[in-house]
Amino acid sequence: MRVQKPKGTVDILPDQSGSWEKVEQILRDFFKRANYREIRTPSFENYEVFSRSSGETSDVVEKEMYDFNDKGGRHIALRPEGTAGVVRAYVEDKLYAPEMVKPLNVYYLESTFRYERPQAGRQREFHQIGIESFGSKNPLADVETIVLAHDLLAELGVKNYELHINTLGNAQVRKDYHDALVNYFRPLKEQLSDDSKRRLEKNPLRILDSKDEQDKQFLPNAPKIIDYLNDDARKNFDQITQMLDQLGISYTIDNDLVRGLDYYSGIIFEFMVEDPSLWESATTILGGGRYDNLVEEFDGPATPAVGFGIGEERLMLVLQKQNPTLFADQGIDFFITNIGEGTEIKAVEIARSLRNQGFKAQYDVDQKKLKAQFKKADRVHAKFVITLGAKELANGILNVKRLSDGKTLELNLTDVDNIKEVIKKLKD
Amino acid sequence: MRVQKPKGTVDILPDQSGSWEKVEQILRDFFKRANYREIRTPSFENYEVFSRSSGETSDVVEKEMYDFNDKGGRHIALRPEGTAGVVRAYVEDKLYAPEMVKPLNVYYLESTFRYERPQAGRQREFHQIGIESFGSKNPLADVETIVLAHDLLAELGVKNYELHINTLGNAQVRKDYHDALVNYFRPLKEQLSDDSKRRLEKNPLRILDSKDEQDKQFLPNAPKIIDYLNDDARKNFDQITQMLDQLGISYTIDNDLVRGLDYYSGIIFEFMVEDPSLWESATTILGGGRYDNLVEEFDGPATPAVGFGIGEERLMLVLQKQNPTLFADQGIDFFITNIGEGTEIKAVEIARSLRNQGFKAQYDVDQKKLKAQFKKADRVHAKFVITLGAKELANGILNVKRLSDGKTLELNLTDVDNIKEVIKKLKD
Repeated sequence: MRVQKPKGTVDILPDQSGSWEKVEQILRDFFKRANYREIRTPSFENYEVFSRSSGETSDVVEKEMYDFNDKGGRHIALRPEGTAGVVRAYVEDKLYAPEMVKPLNVYYLESTFRYERPQAGRQREFHQIGIESFGSKNPLADVETIVLAHDLLAELGVKNYELHINTLGNAQVRKDYHDALVNYFRPLKEQLSDDSKRRLEKNPLRILDSKDEQDKQFLPNAPKIIDYLNDDARKNFDQITQMLDQLGISYTIDNDLVRGLDYYSGIIFEFMVEDPSLWESATTILGGGRYDNLVEEFDGPATPAVGFGIGEERLMLVLQKQNPTLFADQGIDFFITNIGEGTEIKAVEIARSLRNQGFKAQYDVDQKKLKAQFKKADRVHAKFVITLGAKELANGILNVKRLSDGKTLELNLTDVDNIKEVIKKLKD
Repeated sequence: MRVQKPKGTVDILPDQSGSWEKVEQILRDFFKRANYREIRTPSFENYEVFSRSSGETSDVVEKEMYDFNDKGGRHIALRPEGTAGVVRAYVEDKLYAPEMVKPLNVYYLESTFRYERPQAGRQREFHQIGIESFGSKNPLADVETIVLAHDLLAELGVKNYELHINTLGNAQVRKDYHDALVNYFRPLKEQLSDDSKRRLEKNPLRILDSKDEQDKQFLPNAPKIIDYLNDDARKNFDQITQMLDQLGISYTIDNDLVRGLDYYSGIIFEFMVEDPSLWESATTILGGGRYDNLVEEFDGPATPAVGFGIGEERLMLVLQKQNPTLFADQGIDFFITNIGEGTEIKAVEIARSLRNQGFKAQYDVDQKKLKAQFKKADRVHAKFVITLGAKELANGILNVKRLSDGKTLELNLTDVDNIKEVIKKLKD
């Protein structure tokens, strides 16, 4: 019987991994240029980390958590998203200490896990990338987060994206809006889905996010948070949108946007891509917002925070369509073919020298016949082939051939240690 | 109550993560130059993947597996090491197909997990890096693997390492040696540890790896595999050591070396570091070997294979001592300070331009007073500070100052878009 990978997981194979790595390298470089530094938290946390942060009534916690009891009887969950673990670390590792420069800016790239995901094709292990900024309540921090998201997608080569923004106001606004939603949905309770019935009193905001047809009919007429903003919340939202205007970043105010997690406060935003060849309707590839209460929820000091997350699988889908150069096979620089007694050690030495000079170089560890070696050089898309025979080795010479046009050059063995000169000569 | 990270896990914080990333980037670049490509397998597998490969009687499987039952009743384990998942993928994803160039060379960098680890200070989540090469039984493939390990450690700046090698021979040798060990240990059975008693008939090789004092007394006189090599196995081992000699790679033949996993066959090797400030005795930081039967164990076609693995935590410990430059804080290039109405948007725009030109640039999203901004510039180790006031903005000029010597320059706003020229001028 063959052993198979677990349900809902995938292998990222050698012919795909290169593009993942390239994309991740672009992301890392981008974050670092904005002076965001990496943070790595454990792949699993105590269950409570996620139930506290995402909210007991969120889909993530109610339906999707990949949790289990470990051998010590602890209730453990593989992380379903990136923010909660970072906030747990922020508090536990005292990153709020005065000696840390504020805001404390971090990014992460990590595996995330959900056990049950309602939509088809969702994976049990997937990948999330994100940034978090702790310590500033200035609207400029919100703007910086949105600008970074915007510029990052541009740098990756994502096209046709649209920025949707909304605000969840402040504590007073959310309370007033909560009451308005309960008042609106209560008379409709019997017609709502079971999930929404249950969430009605505790967390009616979740109903707005429902994908259930039963619920959807009532959503267009539901109260909009925009009508419940008080002066402070309105002013904050206006400041942010005004700065986005000044920076020439276009956006759509989307009163239906609520995000799927409970911890948001203030601005929330999503970057959506419309691409009929991928999805029927516009789909979120990056989302985030402000969450000023979460650090306190974890018993840390009151700390404003803002961040965003990207689903890497979706991003890769989009990039495969929109920036195919990221998916091209680069091939290697040199393939060293060798034939005859004693030449295999010289082939190893030449490869070591070329690699040491920064080039991709390979030889045939199988030591097949010369014809098979040439074929292999071709199959790995080598740019140059170096040929080494016993006679040549004895005379200290070898041959290099550029495969694109067949141009060849005879070299001394010592020329290999300055291969850039050789490449230059081949170009003349 | 504060929520804490699970027992045996760590956070890699922003002031440490940079060195991890640098080391991983060196590893990735190194592997790619040898035309090894990345493979990513799931963080968890069906339990059987590991019990089949590591061996039912190995410590990993008997004592250390991080396994649990998932909500569907499946017996799942978080991966304890990297090779088994790669072999499972090799078979399941048909990487043995003729259209794949052989040997198929892959590398991985991944989180690995063990629930119980006998030694103090061992982590439940740790990190392993490794390479695997599938498809060549030529001794040159063994040599290539060892050479790569050797050159990689040199490139990372690891010092004082010693290469230990041994061979587990071939199938006939291992059978003869198994019988010799059983004959040797059987009369001593009552004096062995419980673990070794249990393993005596099934897998006596494991006794040689025992850290138990009860067992250790009998190890020096135990039969050595070197005395059971037949002609084929001896010839193979001699070919490998001869090539290592020719390449000037020094090694110690270590008849006590057995490696902790059942799947090895043929050559096995470990790179050990001696550093009294870290460990009392020489400690393995990289280990590997040939495993020609594992693909077949997973019901794939007979496929010779060889590879190695590195424990990243140990490697980082060594590098912190031996190559401290990898741990230096690089700081950022530019900090943009601003004061006065309307300057904050220009600060954002300047930062975007500088980042877009490849530089690390930051401004103060908190918009604190100028003095606090300068202090922040200092604390993030900025090389240059750009200053922007309302009056300067109106006149289209700004100031740039190099912090190392206080040299300043007055610029036009448009000069920012060609900042390399500005840096050049500051150097004159």
